[in-house]
Amino acid sequence: MKGFFRLLTTTQVRQILRSFPRLPGEEVPLNKALGRAVANDIVSPEDLPPFSRSTMDGYALRARDIFGASETEPALLKVVGEVRMGQAPGCGPIGPGEAVRIWTGGMVPEGADAVVMVEYTKELDKDLIEVYKAAAPNENMILKGEDCQKDKVCITRGKRLRPQDLGLLAGLGITKVKVVKSPRVFIISTGDEIVPETEVPEDGKVRDINSTTLEALVRQGKATVKRLGIVEDSFDSIYEKCREALDMGADVILVSGGSSVGARDFTLKVFEHLSGEPPLVHGVAVRPGKPTIISRFEDTALLGLPGHAASCMVVYMLFVQYLLNVMLGLDPETDMEFKRAVCGQIFPSVTGREDYVRVRLEDSKDGILPVAMPIYGKSGLISTLVKADGLLKIPRDSEGYHEGEEAEVMLLP
Amino acid sequence: MKGFFRLLTTTQVRQILRSFPRLPGEEVPLNKALGRAVANDIVSPEDLPPFSRSTMDGYALRARDIFGASETEPALLKVVGEVRMGQAPGCGPIGPGEAVRIWTGGMVPEGADAVVMVEYTKELDKDLIEVYKAAAPNENMILKGEDCQKDKVCITRGKRLRPQDLGLLAGLGITKVKVVKSPRVFIISTGDEIVPETEVPEDGKVRDINSTTLEALVRQGKATVKRLGIVEDSFDSIYEKCREALDMGADVILVSGGSSVGARDFTLKVFEHLSGEPPLVHGVAVRPGKPTIISRFEDTALLGLPGHAASCMVVYMLFVQYLLNVMLGLDPETDMEFKRAVCGQIFPSVTGREDYVRVRLEDSKDGILPVAMPIYGKSGLISTLVKADGLLKIPRDSEGYHEGEEAEVMLLP
Repeated sequence: MKGFFRLLTTTQVRQILRSFPRLPGEEVPLNKALGRAVANDIVSPEDLPPFSRSTMDGYALRARDIFGASETEPALLKVVGEVRMGQAPGCGPIGPGEAVRIWTGGMVPEGADAVVMVEYTKELDKDLIEVYKAAAPNENMILKGEDCQKDKVCITRGKRLRPQDLGLLAGLGITKVKVVKSPRVFIISTGDEIVPETEVPEDGKVRDINSTTLEALVRQGKATVKRLGIVEDSFDSIYEKCREALDMGADVILVSGGSSVGARDFTLKVFEHLSGEPPLVHGVAVRPGKPTIISRFEDTALLGLPGHAASCMVVYMLFVQYLLNVMLGLDPETDMEFKRAVCGQIFPSVTGREDYVRVRLEDSKDGILPVAMPIYGKSGLISTLVKADGLLKIPRDSEGYHEGEEAEVMLLP
Repeated sequence: MKGFFRLLTTTQVRQILRSFPRLPGEEVPLNKALGRAVANDIVSPEDLPPFSRSTMDGYALRARDIFGASETEPALLKVVGEVRMGQAPGCGPIGPGEAVRIWTGGMVPEGADAVVMVEYTKELDKDLIEVYKAAAPNENMILKGEDCQKDKVCITRGKRLRPQDLGLLAGLGITKVKVVKSPRVFIISTGDEIVPETEVPEDGKVRDINSTTLEALVRQGKATVKRLGIVEDSFDSIYEKCREALDMGADVILVSGGSSVGARDFTLKVFEHLSGEPPLVHGVAVRPGKPTIISRFEDTALLGLPGHAASCMVVYMLFVQYLLNVMLGLDPETDMEFKRAVCGQIFPSVTGREDYVRVRLEDSKDGILPVAMPIYGKSGLISTLVKADGLLKIPRDSEGYHEGEEAEVMLLP
């Protein structure tokens, strides 16, 4: 006998996904922190730079001493020394009419409040220069603490660390950083007809596609991933694999296939048995991707994904990545990139569900928005996603788009 | 004495970068191939799927036998067996008036050319069904070779492998793939004032920022990376480190700092000595980022990057990533993402150089284009990039943008 779905909308499903907790923090060295979310606000332990620095090769001096200096009326200054790179200035405070030679990055001595570029000076003798241009106070200097001030928050909780953020932390001497743990994701493929990609399938059998696609998606999504192989369509074998994943500390279990309501679909029963409850979600008002299951066992998310290759990936893009972002402490829509495009053809749909039509994006002649062209093909065909640049979204209340209308396209990785 | 630059435009510099060769191919397993460029066209060794499959639970039959079937005039068919999952159909060819039970993913037997969903049938007894709905030929089936045809190119040379591409390859039993090698990039920081991020700097010294930023950028750019530490500002020490990198098989050497034309800038001399020629580039008409050097030793690119943290990253984004993409066999502009934005303030510039102004992107009230707000700060400040979402590009022939004008923003990682 065939059952029925109670379809939830994307918004409803995402609200449920947001109820899963952010994972705890762990300390990692900077070279393992790229792309991870910061677990706590990071407070700067010191001023950066720790002293005022010159940004030019030239002379450090008092701005007021060269006020009004010009080609015709140069200021005359006494050179009282040279600041050697990587050393404290060897001189006392700079007094009226004095200057010191300085290099880019050098430490500006006390008393000086500007640097004049060497191009605007002329050495008259070893310790006398003419300056041809005025300088404003703080000109050609980076002030102590200008990049980052001691005791101020320099990176806020939840921020995803980018290369430049790591550079700032290195500059502050912060070589380890507390980031949110990566979810441990386990992938299980189900189906009596599925064999590993390393095997030559006999008649009636096909190779596993979803484990490979999902593994790469999860890895791209900054989670750690382990494939648990293929199991036959039976309650016991799916149940055992899920238990195995739970015993290994799974934060997310992805079961591909067997998520529908047919006689051979056991994923729902396994999830109900594990969680002791009906699923949080069974069926989403999205096409492709309807037969999707979400259950919860303690803090672990149990997800049943459609077996059809294209449906499986669409559900990943819409919901699994969202869930991983929640667990990772990131804005849940991180990496969901949308682009506006013009429909190159009619895109029919029906109301009551959101459609995600695989499209190729072509350059338009006028050069502004790209043109979206549909890629026809059943949701079981992985090649449609290989050809696609994105998924054109047709909202739930729309019957589709006419040629020439604008629409939103969710970019595929 | 101070020298002068001969500034090249972005277009000229990129043309020079395109003269570096694509690296050779290497065979890697699928789980190492994500994001890499395919070295050769990949030809499908077989049909995918290898046989026609059902996409529904139902009955496989001859479409012509249920032509015109409806609720009021059902068609009557004889059930001659069941196709077991993962097995060849146990029956002979389907003859007129015959049907076999089949499940989603099952192998459609010879003679059958459509599948009718179980919902549109009624079992009258063990081997007799009524069918209430007609089916078109090939309905609810994926045909043999419909996903991928034997001997056809399924992935073209130069394509960057995405999760779904790896899924397709797995489905075809292709478990190793020839991809373009990753460039080996070596990073050298120069400066008498620079200490490693693990040290507490004495007066006059600061910690290395660029090595950390560059390392993360290169890793994100799919190249392999090794930091060679910090060297003092002298010809000999920079030369030695460059030789060390060459001996280790460097495809790209990045030297940060010492790339300008001052008395303490030795990078140019080292590159000239190594290559035996003047540099291909010394000075780019870009701000920030002017003091950039590009030389070539055999097929290795030698790049001198500005020491100022923000300039260094801008040059990386505009040129180093471009070069890595050339070597990786990718479209050179891969990962250079631009977004249109509205200027939230006036953005002044001067003609003769391209400006890349660090900006924050804010949501606009009308919800269409984001609003770009400048982040003020000197090019030595890494914090400006920490705050920035992108770089607003002001073309070489423009004196800037007024508030409310549209501009292109290069997104930062």
